[in-house]
Amino acid sequence: MATFGENYYMKILLVGGQGTIGKRVATAFKERHELIIAGRNSGDIRVDISSSESIVQLFEQTGKIDACICMAGTGYYGPFDTMTELDMLPGIQGKLLGQINLVLIGKEYLSEGGSFTLTTGIAAERPARNGTCVAMINGAINSFVLGAAQELKQDKRINAVSPGLVEDSKERYGAFFPGYNLVPMAKLVNAYMLSVEGVVNGKILTVYE
Amino acid sequence: MATFGENYYMKILLVGGQGTIGKRVATAFKERHELIIAGRNSGDIRVDISSSESIVQLFEQTGKIDACICMAGTGYYGPFDTMTELDMLPGIQGKLLGQINLVLIGKEYLSEGGSFTLTTGIAAERPARNGTCVAMINGAINSFVLGAAQELKQDKRINAVSPGLVEDSKERYGAFFPGYNLVPMAKLVNAYMLSVEGVVNGKILTVYE
Repeated sequence: MATFGENYYMKILLVGGQGTIGKRVATAFKERHELIIAGRNSGDIRVDISSSESIVQLFEQTGKIDACICMAGTGYYGPFDTMTELDMLPGIQGKLLGQINLVLIGKEYLSEGGSFTLTTGIAAERPARNGTCVAMINGAINSFVLGAAQELKQDKRINAVSPGLVEDSKERYGAFFPGYNLVPMAKLVNAYMLSVEGVVNGKILTVYE
Repeated sequence: MATFGENYYMKILLVGGQGTIGKRVATAFKERHELIIAGRNSGDIRVDISSSESIVQLFEQTGKIDACICMAGTGYYGPFDTMTELDMLPGIQGKLLGQINLVLIGKEYLSEGGSFTLTTGIAAERPARNGTCVAMINGAINSFVLGAAQELKQDKRINAVSPGLVEDSKERYGAFFPGYNLVPMAKLVNAYMLSVEGVVNGKILTVYE
């Protein structure tokens, strides 16, 4: 990694770099970093994080990177009363195992001192109605990060950013989260910045308001 | 449920009722409750919680119950460096989805005002070396409980008991948890008692020392 002012010039992989959060993070990071945007349907490289083979292919194409940020993956939102295992499986294979596989596979492609930043969410602690599956996924990733941070070698780091209801989602999702404060996008971007350019490790960076 | 002194006389299903924790909980609860012990290889009813079909068959045999306590399921302990998705899947299908399926399926067999008590563990917050997979599973169940507690109908309740290193496991597992305080079995049993006979809902009942 070459220094860039007080920060570093890094080669950063953004998975889900064209989603609601991803677009904002990409805009902020591209000012002083080289970005590789990966996504299911768009970006520089196509990846389906629910497939470990697809993740291997992703890293074969990126080669060595200095940071990997994942903002991809979602999970079932719907009535708890009728929810079954089948409703939960796509989220488990995607946002849960997908993010874990990015780390387990990607750590071999990460530079010494490099970082992973995963994305969870407020549901882990304060689930809204219909959000039990997503709560479960977010709680899983938060605890995974605590363990992985202790085990990664060569000063590699890992953190999770846990957003609340973000401003850019107000129109589409606001009605499903009554009483949740809106998170300014700039504050959310700052959490990703802290994880990637800072020195924190094993932190759940909550951005709830 | 018939009253029994100040408490209730309940019909309680103990899944994993012959394991390290299960035996202690069974001994305490059988003094004033009717117990049905379910286990993979022993007990009144055989069940493999990693199979939703097996869980359906379990509840078909128990009929209506007043409480369900799960103390079954485990997850991968081993080096993080070489861990893959395949190492994690049995724990995900068992302790994670198994406990969730006990709730999603079992809630139809639970009396009004009845309770689920799941088991997680200290790894969710303070994973030991090699414990990242188990941390993830425990964190998932803790957050699932927060969501499910808000959604269950008919005053049904759900809590998780999150033990640290328990006294009865000192010989077998103590060496893997340096610096972890031993949890007296009586304190752990009390947490299950609080969940089943008390009125708490949506709580992670940590018993770390």
